[in-house]
Amino acid sequence: MSSRQVPLAERVALTLERHAKELCELTNRHMSADEREAVALAIPILVQLLKGGHGASAAALAIDHLGVNSAANTNAIREAGAIAPLVALLQAGAGSKAATTAAGALWSLAYSNDTNRNAIREAGAIAPLVALLQAGAGSEAATKAAAALWSLANSTDTNQDAIREAGAIAPLVVLLQAGAGSEAATIAAGALWNLANSNDTNKKAIREAGAIAPLVALLQAGAGSEAATKAAGALGNLSNSNDTNKNAICEAGAIAPLVVLLQAGAGS
Amino acid sequence: MSSRQVPLAERVALTLERHAKELCELTNRHMSADEREAVALAIPILVQLLKGGHGASAAALAIDHLGVNSAANTNAIREAGAIAPLVALLQAGAGSKAATTAAGALWSLAYSNDTNRNAIREAGAIAPLVALLQAGAGSEAATKAAAALWSLANSTDTNQDAIREAGAIAPLVVLLQAGAGSEAATIAAGALWNLANSNDTNKKAIREAGAIAPLVALLQAGAGSEAATKAAGALGNLSNSNDTNKNAICEAGAIAPLVVLLQAGAGS
Repeated sequence: MSSRQVPLAERVALTLERHAKELCELTNRHMSADEREAVALAIPILVQLLKGGHGASAAALAIDHLGVNSAANTNAIREAGAIAPLVALLQAGAGSKAATTAAGALWSLAYSNDTNRNAIREAGAIAPLVALLQAGAGSEAATKAAAALWSLANSTDTNQDAIREAGAIAPLVVLLQAGAGSEAATIAAGALWNLANSNDTNKKAIREAGAIAPLVALLQAGAGSEAATKAAGALGNLSNSNDTNKNAICEAGAIAPLVVLLQAGAGS
Repeated sequence: MSSRQVPLAERVALTLERHAKELCELTNRHMSADEREAVALAIPILVQLLKGGHGASAAALAIDHLGVNSAANTNAIREAGAIAPLVALLQAGAGSKAATTAAGALWSLAYSNDTNRNAIREAGAIAPLVALLQAGAGSEAATKAAAALWSLANSTDTNQDAIREAGAIAPLVVLLQAGAGSEAATIAAGALWNLANSNDTNKKAIREAGAIAPLVALLQAGAGSEAATKAAGALGNLSNSNDTNKNAICEAGAIAPLVVLLQAGAGS
């Protein structure tokens, strides 16, 4: 079939999808600061590709890559209007590559950027991110959603409360149960670490949701394990100024593995 | 040289330029209404390509094509923010393909769209369009600029006055002198037709700038000639409720060729 016979709307859509993929191929997660700056001129175009819906996954992935470790880019991406269409992509659910990629991009945008953390919450991202968590530890969508919630919960009471109120704690505890070999469990421990930071309501809710036993289990992975490090952080925040939690953590057998971790830390 | 060795900024710029050209190739001046609608989804992306400056000429040409005969598209193009970057491209001057293409796009956007006519004036387009006129009848930039001013002068006193105040009348009269074989002269006659419409200050200024003799000369091209039709329109508006102009037009020998045109009209 010659190009003339393909309806123009379809040719335009395919062209835009290819363009998004080509721009995405010019990016990667490990770009240098100079490279990120070089690609920044494509940000407004990527955001329009995201909004238009043709090539949205590729555009979201490129945006994810451009947002990593670049405050300038994460601000430019927000200012170009990316957050609302990324949140819209989340709605496609855990079976959708676009939703997974959008959750990853929101993780990048929320990381180390308070303005973005608030803008992402205000755009309605928390409920669909929590819905993605339900897909469980084997789902990349759930892992990326947990990571986005981890960043969103950082240093902001409003977000910590909103994430709890949206029902995130129970499915994060389910992810913990996948154990130290699971990236999802590690990330869920990180999310709970931030959710428990100086937030008494969350400390109580996380204990009541049954997080302490699986967090203690993650400690067993030992020094050098990301899972154990994040679990130790979460248990530290849960016990801080909270005697009920301190007792529960002791009773769950945390002392011995924490001592092992501490000894490894002291010797390293 | 492999693609890896080309600096990333250059690769991104070249990619965006190619993308603009590919989108431009999916458009043309003679698209059907359905085709225009099919391409409308690319409008925000084209506007970003225009703003980014890589592939700006191709993006401006596509925008020109999409604006022809489509009120929906001309509104969408304005709302997507095209007018300011098109005006910025005009500044490159008559030797620049980008400026010529931008003038053409502004012509499309101003045509039959009052909101755009005002927005284009407010964005500061009139002075650089008048500057392009100075390149003379052999210049495509001057021809496109005259066409844009023609559309801008339609049905709006504010624009008619602003165009006169920016010094457009003298260079439009120069373009008239290129004669009926010149597209620039035909378009200049069209612009003067609109500038003289119910605007006494402009009627006087156009006569004083020496337009009447070259307009009468264009009449000689006879029925079927665009140049003669536009010149007759201009002379009609110049003479309307203005005895000084009526006398000057008579003295310049307009009656005989106007009678010829009228007779041809009556028989057609």
